[in-house]
Formats: sequence, structure tokens, C-alpha cells
Amino acid sequence: MNKPVDQSEFETPEVTTGPLPASRKVYTHPKADPSLSVPRRMIDLHPSANEPPVPVYDTSGPYSDPSVTIDVEKGLARHRTDWVLERGHVEAYDGREVKPEDNGGATGKYLAREFPITNQPLRGTGNGPLTQFEYAKAGIITKEMIYVAERENLGRQEAVENAKAQIEQGESFGAEIPEFITPEFVRDEIARGRAVIPSNINHPELEPQIIGRNFLVKINANIGNSAVASSVEEEVEKMVWATRWGADNVMDLSTGRNIHNTREWIIRNSPVPIGTVPIYQALEKVNGVAEDLTWEVYRDTLIEQCEQGVDYFTIHAGVRLAYIHLTADRVTGIVSRGGSIMAKWCLAHHEESFLYTRFAEICDIMRAYDVTFSLGDGLRPGSIADANDAAQFAELETLGELTKIAHARGCQVMIEGPGHVPMHKIKVNMDKQLKECGEAPFYTLGPLTTDIAPGYDHITSGIGAAMIGWFGTAMLCYVTPKEHLGLPDRDDVKVGVITYKLAAHAADLAKGHPASQIRDDALSRARFEFRWEDQFNLSLDPETARDYHDQTLPKDAHKVAHFCSMCGPKFCSMKITAEVRDYADGLSDNEKADLQRQADEARKGMEEKSREFKTKGSQIYLDAT
Amino acid sequence: MNKPVDQSEFETPEVTTGPLPASRKVYTHPKADPSLSVPRRMIDLHPSANEPPVPVYDTSGPYSDPSVTIDVEKGLARHRTDWVLERGHVEAYDGREVKPEDNGGATGKYLAREFPITNQPLRGTGNGPLTQFEYAKAGIITKEMIYVAERENLGRQEAVENAKAQIEQGESFGAEIPEFITPEFVRDEIARGRAVIPSNINHPELEPQIIGRNFLVKINANIGNSAVASSVEEEVEKMVWATRWGADNVMDLSTGRNIHNTREWIIRNSPVPIGTVPIYQALEKVNGVAEDLTWEVYRDTLIEQCEQGVDYFTIHAGVRLAYIHLTADRVTGIVSRGGSIMAKWCLAHHEESFLYTRFAEICDIMRAYDVTFSLGDGLRPGSIADANDAAQFAELETLGELTKIAHARGCQVMIEGPGHVPMHKIKVNMDKQLKECGEAPFYTLGPLTTDIAPGYDHITSGIGAAMIGWFGTAMLCYVTPKEHLGLPDRDDVKVGVITYKLAAHAADLAKGHPASQIRDDALSRARFEFRWEDQFNLSLDPETARDYHDQTLPKDAHKVAHFCSMCGPKFCSMKITAEVRDYADGLSDNEKADLQRQADEARKGMEEKSREFKTKGSQIYLDAT
Repeated sequence: MNKPVDQSEFETPEVTTGPLPASRKVYTHPKADPSLSVPRRMIDLHPSANEPPVPVYDTSGPYSDPSVTIDVEKGLARHRTDWVLERGHVEAYDGREVKPEDNGGATGKYLAREFPITNQPLRGTGNGPLTQFEYAKAGIITKEMIYVAERENLGRQEAVENAKAQIEQGESFGAEIPEFITPEFVRDEIARGRAVIPSNINHPELEPQIIGRNFLVKINANIGNSAVASSVEEEVEKMVWATRWGADNVMDLSTGRNIHNTREWIIRNSPVPIGTVPIYQALEKVNGVAEDLTWEVYRDTLIEQCEQGVDYFTIHAGVRLAYIHLTADRVTGIVSRGGSIMAKWCLAHHEESFLYTRFAEICDIMRAYDVTFSLGDGLRPGSIADANDAAQFAELETLGELTKIAHARGCQVMIEGPGHVPMHKIKVNMDKQLKECGEAPFYTLGPLTTDIAPGYDHITSGIGAAMIGWFGTAMLCYVTPKEHLGLPDRDDVKVGVITYKLAAHAADLAKGHPASQIRDDALSRARFEFRWEDQFNLSLDPETARDYHDQTLPKDAHKVAHFCSMCGPKFCSMKITAEVRDYADGLSDNEKADLQRQADEARKGMEEKSREFKTKGSQIYLDAT
Repeated sequence: MNKPVDQSEFETPEVTTGPLPASRKVYTHPKADPSLSVPRRMIDLHPSANEPPVPVYDTSGPYSDPSVTIDVEKGLARHRTDWVLERGHVEAYDGREVKPEDNGGATGKYLAREFPITNQPLRGTGNGPLTQFEYAKAGIITKEMIYVAERENLGRQEAVENAKAQIEQGESFGAEIPEFITPEFVRDEIARGRAVIPSNINHPELEPQIIGRNFLVKINANIGNSAVASSVEEEVEKMVWATRWGADNVMDLSTGRNIHNTREWIIRNSPVPIGTVPIYQALEKVNGVAEDLTWEVYRDTLIEQCEQGVDYFTIHAGVRLAYIHLTADRVTGIVSRGGSIMAKWCLAHHEESFLYTRFAEICDIMRAYDVTFSLGDGLRPGSIADANDAAQFAELETLGELTKIAHARGCQVMIEGPGHVPMHKIKVNMDKQLKECGEAPFYTLGPLTTDIAPGYDHITSGIGAAMIGWFGTAMLCYVTPKEHLGLPDRDDVKVGVITYKLAAHAADLAKGHPASQIRDDALSRARFEFRWEDQFNLSLDPETARDYHDQTLPKDAHKVAHFCSMCGPKFCSMKITAEVRDYADGLSDNEKADLQRQADEARKGMEEKSREFKTKGSQIYLDAT
């Protein structure tokens, strides 16, 4: 039990609320179940545009809805509890008691305040399907599936007549993107193991979302306190902040003390799935000594986190004793924290990893709460030199085997990927993952395409992320500018999220997702017509766009000016195009053909002259030298 | 003639000098001509590393050499004048007199100070080869060719035994990268039109560099004052600043007043080739009224700039009257400034562009000074929607024809490329350019892979740049965070250069350039061994890397700490790998085989158990629902 502490010593987390510029939160109601309210953000354009508002995918939850009163002490509304109870095969029970080691033994003023409200956890009874995977296999469409189908269809209704053409002109490398997403399509993709909806039954505050290669590419933002820095208040705000800018998922990678309490605050207030790496907390419970880890400590940690509502666990079960020596000749050895913890354990005991030997038991625990596997790549390369090596691929093959086992036991599965990979090795990596893991969603960190730009690794990795997203990765784990150097602050989190959002969007465009180009086109028209406000509002980061414009042309009048700082007021290339349009409108087909004829003749004349010159010309030089 | 002005009103440009952290400037002397001094930067590592210094390509000129006294009023040493005179076929002559309109009619305090020193310009006499292309065709290896071969070979001497393997494991999409760059290889590539050395005979301050698909990918930084902002001092420093961080080339895109004088200061102080778009200045001379442009004004501007020493001209000769109407249905019409100027002119006169009809004359002028063509893509797409359309490709085909003409007349040629292109259309674009233009070096702006991230367009375009660089583009024109929004300041220039430097390097790695991975590996080793100082010093931007580290772990002691902020002092994944190495060293081959055998057995047992479970498991759910 926690000792009583003076609650006044803790601040209530302050979080960012309110709509984004020119944006309204709108909820739509799927035909298949009109009781559901699926969020989207509508960006209103200037009346002069005479264009409809642009719908955009909205991960920000109720925080951007002015009609919702946010109270971080109460958490978000637990709207999904009814969905879960209605389906049945669950029971409420007295959860595991919080132990001092759950918060790293912190006491007194060092112990972070508990979340004020306690809920009884739910778990599966085992007498019927529980996970989204099991329902999908059983042919049952859940409310979560209906919800994500509606969410994913954003803009497709309007674009449906072009959908086929858009899909055809894209290049999806064998993905099977449909013209329209139906709940049945979602069910089928989940049943085939090609998509997941991370959604712990104990995280009812969640707005579900789907991750799979035939859906929009998602991104993940990492947050988390560490032994060195950061507080509960900061972490909750980082989660809200990251989702405001577009994080579809958030991983809490906290280490050190107060892990349990920090996580409770985050989950109770999170509209997006929360992932963790349970071995991090387990290690804290054995005072950071990897060889002291036991299956019992780990198992207890899994249950603790399942009850809290964590939606997906990174589990490094592919780091097997037999593979560890394969990393010995690497430039950067084992760089995954979880991977190296398990490597250390295996070596200390000279025994197979308990994550592997106990894998079936882990599945059974996770199944009872519908926690999605994120099979960790503990042997991922930490440098260009180590990409796609024997250790990495041996582990990936094992992850493929584990995927089958987890599916057989009813669990949803994603696979984590690297890391550091030069461009020409990215596709090989992606193709091997698709093959080994039966198209289970790939969830990659970057990859970084060069090692020489610390401070810019959001960019070195954004390049790799856009490419691997195009090739088939379902979710991209962001990298911030602080990668390899320090812990991201609020600004870094935003830059990381926006960078990955644009990479994911570039991938969606290239894959040919219907409707994915709507926002690009609306922004380009705004740019072309000098609707500066619309251009800012339609961008991923309106604040930065406006701020950069202000730095050169600060006056308000310039926001309606028909010129930009590049060419100045006297001449403008975009203005001229308006004249071109008038001209083209006035051309008959005959006139156009005439133009082409004249052009062809002129070209021929020029070519002839040059041929002559060439003979004479080269003659001159050869004579002279 | 300029009116006399009070010179004291102008500041002497202050520029950034001094070596980069832990770096020494070193000059090597090619075997083929030991009189030449070719710069490189050597990064010294901490003695504990026990590793040789890492050589890196150095574009910063004498500014980073503490042994050179920099005097911006005198300009850099004119070391290349002797090379040009020695070759002959040139004459010095009284250059064109500076006219008031060259500086936009600026007078008094509005007129920027003239560069204090005047040099008589040189031009070709026509009685022998003059351009690098002509020498290459005539089988003659110039000093410039020897210089760039030495410069390009950086690190290859040391890596030569692995060169073949590196080339083979890369994917160069049909490039012909040699194991070692010889002056003869350089000559041959230039003669084939596959590479250029922009090097006006009137820019003797230049340190030559080669641009072509079989060489390291180069980058270009744009600077330039505009009607709205910026001064001569700022522009000179921007050039020095951009080259300090790695710009291989700089374009001066100045508009408004003082174009002539600003350019003179820049060229006289520039160690890298300077490019311009002469139509910009010509337009200023006719007061910004495009239809008032004449061949005579343009011709005079070309000569003005040839005499000053501009190394390459963007010439939008592919914007033909017959193509203009093809842009009418675009989302963003004509966005190239030069392209729209010429479109406007063509429409106003209903006449073929004089850049096209006078193309042979333009060649003859440029040939006399060895100014390289950068054939402009005036009809490039300004949005994702307009990528690879009829207008763009019609122009590209014309650029292919013009390439042949320019080559026939002895000129070096590059081709400019887009712009805005979604990922799946980039390769099509590249392949068409290679085909139409006979592998003449492609020089692309980005391309931007999505339109929705103003403020982050260095990143949206960095993605496209890395990819197109990999596919065959020889030079990448940077995009700064201010693109579409405002004029880049000093910080933006740096971010743009570093972003493009890392994109170009990612491309070099993927193509399999021998020795390109040396710096990545050295940095990765430093990272792995917690040599923080080496990690900073080896990075493209040591200042930012150090600054980010300081933000989390400010103390000096942390720069030698064997942990980072991610995991803290108690646990470190990298430390564990050292233990793995000791363990692997102790394993016999038999022991390794045993490990694998045990692993295989365990896997089989697990698979069997899961198959059983699957049958039973699914049975349970189906019964219950």
C-alpha cells in the first residue's frame, strides 16, 4: 500500500485544449451503427474560396472539442465500457493491488500522486471470443470495427467516383486497398491477421483506430519519464500534445520511479492506444539488475499493465539465446534496450529467454484483456553497417513463428522493425517481414538512412519512414530531433509528430489511397490563389507556417496580399497563370494544332543547323589544339 | 556610370571563419599534377578511439583555413587564372561598362557599394577549345579534371580493396560508378555529356567540383536579396555560411535593386560555383514588365554576368509557345518564376520564346566563357496534382533537344527538374530525364512528396531528394523550412543545407559509392563507445548535436559518461553488448551449433503445442457465440 502523502504537493496536469485554427470537431454516425460518434476535423476555408470544408483525420480526442469539459482528474469519458459489456465473455474483478515496487519504491514527496479514481478491471472469462481477432475470426463485426471503418473512410464518400482510378495510378506493392472501407472489410483484414485494432478492454476512453497495410499509415509517438528527467504532469501533457498534432498511438517508455502512477494518469486521459515495454518496469522492480529478472516478476507486471488498460506491449520474445552471439561482430551490437536486457539475462543464466519459453502463457494473459502484441525487434541494427544482418533476420524469422502462435491463441499481433537501414536495403527488409509474418502489420522505427546527422535524425529517419510506409509498413514510430542525444521536450515531440505525419501522408499518396490527395489539392489551390490564411490552416502545423510568414512579411495586410516574399509585389508567377488560363480558354482546337505544327517546324530547323555546326565546330577545335 | 557615393555608409561584409570542431584543413596533391592543392577536412578523434582521422568532403574554401587571411574587400585568391591562361584560346578585353540599370537604377545611399577591385574579363577567342566539354571532347585532361578527380576520391584510397564489393552491394540503377576516380574517367564522363564542371574562366577563385550521376551527389543552396528584404552583407555571409555547412554550389537569385554589385561581392568571395537566372535581372532592367523584355536586353545581361564570372545560368528555353496552354488545367499553373516570365512574354507577343529561337546565339555566348547551361524547367509542377503532366514532359523533351544543340556548340549542360512529385512518380521522372537528355546531369528542386506541410518543406522535399538522388540525380537544390512562406534567414540556410547534405549522403550510400560509409561507421563506433565528443564532431552539424545533448545532460562530466539520457546510468544497452562480445569470443563452433540445435527443438515443440491449441481454441469461441 502507498503511504498517505500530502496531495497538495502535486500539481494537476495542465493540458492543451481548444480547436485548431479554423477547425471544427464534427462527429459522423456510421450507417451500420448510428449510435457511434466518429470524430473528424473540418477545416473551414475563406468564403472567397467557394470550396467545401476539408475533412481531416483527427487523433486529438475530446481535447479539441470546445463542447467537452476536460477534467484531467476524472479522465476521459469511458464510452467503450458499454461496447465491451454488451459483447460479454468478460467479468469485473478485484484487480491486483498496487505494490510499492510498481512505483520503484518511491515514497513521500517522491511518490507521484495516484490517479483519484479507481475502476474495477475487466478480463475475459474464456467462454467466448474476447479479442478483436477472435471476433473477426468468428465472423462477428464489433463496434470497434464499424468505428474504424467510418474513421478510415474520411473523404472517400466524396471521392468515390475517382477511387478506382486513384488506386490504379498509385503503386501499392501488392497491398489490396479497397475503394471504400466497409466494416466487413475491416473484419476480414483483422481475421487474416493483416490489421489490428489495439484496444484493451480496460481502456474504454479509447477512440479506436486500425493499423494495417491496407489502411492509412499510422504513426506512434514515444513519451515517458526516465531516471534522468521529467514529471507526471509533463508526460500527460506530452501525450495530449502529441495527439493534438496527429499521433495515432503513444508509447509510454517510462523508466525509473513512479511508472505505475504516471501510466495511470496517461491512460485515463488518452483517446489513443497506449503502448508500453513491460520489461522496462519489470527491470525497475529488480533494481535494474537484468539477471535478477524472473518470469514471476514479469508475469505480475504484465497483469498490472493489462488491468490498467495498456493497449499494446512490446515483447522481445525473438531475442533467443542462439542468436545473441550473431551480434558480436556488429559495429553497434545490441541497441534495443529490451533486447539487451534479455540478452544479458540469457547470458547470465545461459538459458533460453523466458519471453520465448513462456510465450504461450504470455498470449493467454494478453488475450484475456485484448492487449495487442508488438513483437519487439531486440536485435535491430543500430547503424547502417549492421542493417539486414544475420542477427536481425534470424530474429525476424522467429517473430514470424511467434505471430502464428499468438494468432492461434487469439491475440492481435504487430511486428516491430528497424532502426538504421540505408535506402537500398529498405525494400528487402519490408518484403521479408511480409513473407515471414504473413502480412501482420509492420511497425518500424524510422528507419534512419544515414548515421551522420545527429540532431536531424527526425529527417534521416523520415526519409526511410516515408519509403517503408510506401512499401507496406502500417505504422511508423516517430524519431525526434533529440534522438541519440537527449530526451525530447514539447517542441521536439511536435517536430517529430509533424515529420512522421508528413512521411505517412507521402506514403498514403504514393500507395494511391482514394481521397488522400484532397488536402494537398486544397492547400495547393489556396497557395495558388494567395489565400494565405487557408494555406496556414490546411497545413499540418498552422502555427509554424504562420510564424514563418510573419518573419518576412509581418503585417496583417500581407496575409491578403496577392504576392509572396519570393518575387515581391511587382511580379508574380502565379498571377501570370491566370492570364494563361484566359488565353487557353480562347484557343480553338485548330489554333492549338497550328501552334504544335509551327513548333515542330522550328525544332527541325534548329536541329539541322546544329548538325551542320557540329561537323564544322569540332573541326575547329581539333585544328587548333 | 555610378554616381560617387560616400563609401563609409556601407559595412564590409562580416563572414564566418575558422575551422569546424576538431577539424583540420588538409591539402592533397594529385599524382597527375602535384602543383594542385585539393582541400579536404580531417576530423580528429579522441586518442582513446585509436582510430585515424576521418576525411570529409570540404566545400568551405579558405574560410575554414586558419592559415589564410580573409579579406572580403579583396576577394579570394585568383588561383585558377594561371590554369586558364596556360591553356590559351582566351583573350583579356575591356569588359562591358556597368550601367545604372544593372543595379536597378539605385543611386546614392540606396546603391550598394561596388566591389573595390576591378579585373579585366577573359573570353574565348574561338580558335581552339575553351570549355571543359570541348577539352574533354578533344581528349585533353585539364587541371580542373585532375582537381575534381582527386577531390572525389576522398577516402577511396583507403577503401579501395572493398570498393568493388561496395559498388556491387549498392543499387545504382544503371549508373557506372568506378572503384577509383581517375582524371581520364572524369574527362570521359564530361565528353559523354554525363558530367559537368561549372567553372567560368572569369571565376578563378573557384575550387572546381564535378556534377554527374557517377560522382558523389552534390547540393545547391539558393541565396539572394529580393524586392522585400536583405542586404549585400547578408548575402555574402549567406554564401560563406552555406558553403561552411556543405553547399557545393550556390545560386544567387537576387531580384530588385543592386543585383550587379551584390553578385560581384559574392563571386569574388566564393570558393564554389555561382549560378544565376539571368532573366531575373533582365526583367528588372525593363522595370518588371515581362512583355518589354527583348533579346537585346537579355543578351546584354548574359554578357554582363559572363564577365563577372557566373558559373551556370538557368535558362528556361524549353517554355515554348505551343506548350503554354497545356498548363491551363493545372491546379497550380506555372510556378517557376522564369517560366512564367517567358509564358507572359510569349502570350503578349504571340511569338515563340526568344530563349528558344536565339538558343544557338546563347550557346555561343556561354561557350566563350565556359558558363554551364542549367536548362530550366519553367513548366515544372507546383503541386502533387500537376506532377508528370503533359506540360512538364513536353518541356523535358525539348530540354533533351536543346541539350544536343548545346553540346554540339561546345557547352556543358545540366537539366533542371521538379518540384512537387509524389513518391511513386519520382522514378518515372528520373528515367525520362536520363533517356531524353542522354544522361546529362539532372539537377532537381526536391521534389516535395506532399503539399500539406508548409514550414517543413525541407523535409517533404528531403524525402524526394534522397530518392531521386539515389535514382540518378546529380545535384539536389535545397529547400529551406521557409519555402512557400518567406525568405530564408541564416538559420534556415543552415537547416536547408544540412537536410540536403544528409539526403545526398543517403543517396551516395544507397548507390554504393566506395568509401561513402566511412563517416557513418566512424560515428556509429563513437556512439557505441560513448565517445560523445567524437559523435558531435563527426556529425554534419556538431553545434546542434552538442546543444541538444546539453539540454538534457548539461554537465561536462556527461560528455565522458558511459550512459545516455535514454536509459540513465543504472542500465545501458550498449554496455551489455561488450559483455556479449566477451561471451561470443568464448564460444567454440561446436557450442554454437549446439545452441542452434536446442533452439530448433524448442521451436518445434512450441509449434506443435500451438497447432493443438488452435483446433481446440477456435472450437471454444464458436460454441460460445
